[in-house]
Amino acid sequence: MSVKIASTNHPVHALVASRFSPYAFADREVTREDLVSLFEAARWAPSSYNEQPWSYIVATREDGKEYERLLSCLVDPNQAWAKAAPVLALGVARTRFVRNDKPNAAALHDLGAASAHLTFEASARGLAVHQMIGILPDRAREVYSIPDHSEALTGLAIGYAAEPANAPDPYRERDETPRQRKALTEFVFSGSYGKANTFA
Amino acid sequence: MSVKIASTNHPVHALVASRFSPYAFADREVTREDLVSLFEAARWAPSSYNEQPWSYIVATREDGKEYERLLSCLVDPNQAWAKAAPVLALGVARTRFVRNDKPNAAALHDLGAASAHLTFEASARGLAVHQMIGILPDRAREVYSIPDHSEALTGLAIGYAAEPANAPDPYRERDETPRQRKALTEFVFSGSYGKANTFA
Repeated sequence: MSVKIASTNHPVHALVASRFSPYAFADREVTREDLVSLFEAARWAPSSYNEQPWSYIVATREDGKEYERLLSCLVDPNQAWAKAAPVLALGVARTRFVRNDKPNAAALHDLGAASAHLTFEASARGLAVHQMIGILPDRAREVYSIPDHSEALTGLAIGYAAEPANAPDPYRERDETPRQRKALTEFVFSGSYGKANTFA
Repeated sequence: MSVKIASTNHPVHALVASRFSPYAFADREVTREDLVSLFEAARWAPSSYNEQPWSYIVATREDGKEYERLLSCLVDPNQAWAKAAPVLALGVARTRFVRNDKPNAAALHDLGAASAHLTFEASARGLAVHQMIGILPDRAREVYSIPDHSEALTGLAIGYAAEPANAPDPYRERDETPRQRKALTEFVFSGSYGKANTFA
């Protein structure tokens, strides 16, 4: 299992620091027990009005043709590396409330929270998740008959991270590059937008 | 510290199961060390193209007038309970890419992921976060001079959860009610949208 620890400036939980999005996946299946717990973790994410607007369309390599169908909903450059992952999923947000069909302004936000929960549970189990915005939403809608009230936003590749050398070109280099982030002072503000909070 | 454990159907990490959104907060400050680590955890969330589109405007009770300004950006019903939290924040998403000003379809999603990271770190430190969609985005834009490329989407109340009896009416009952979620079969699909995956 490959790891890539964040170079944090302040202490964070080990499972936050160790999470990363690999381009290389090992040839090792994910057990049913692990997989179901990943989605159980997503299930308990918070959401606006407890709407739980997220859903996932999931295929494992064992599903054969279903796996190929899901892979075909990713853009080609993502297929190149994601096809090594034993589990693929699409993250879908219901953008209208069930109870009144009005727009849910938090729908995409809450999908992001649910997928973060899923990813955290994955980290806790030695698994890694690589999310992508590079999917084909129109194709996904057609292939999976996604209703108008919902939209596929993300792809998720799930499995065991492998050493970067196993990633296809040109992704190997990305797996070998340390993770970079803005400084806290660039996004934690006080008093007005853009003004760094003194504690940051 | 009050806790409210999820009644999960499948095992999840203790920090996922114990996370909840309290309406009652204890009269206890959050240390600077804890606070900075919460935002450090948000910092390491994944994002589309590593854009990191999230930012937070933060005020602690010690900030006095700044705290009051932030509180005034929440809708009245949320002010009623959130004013007991020692730390308040607004979650802001930059909805256009820095590099080309084009819309970032993942902006709200990635704010959701960052806030989930923040919340996870809070759980690890015995703190709780209650997020709200019930804010006044136009007022927030005015008060904090939020540029057009960004929008305030969420409020966050951060602190130590207190016993439900400490929540103001009518929120006490919500704190006493067990957390409810859809079944996995209602949101984990295979083959077509709405068709439960057999592993779920």
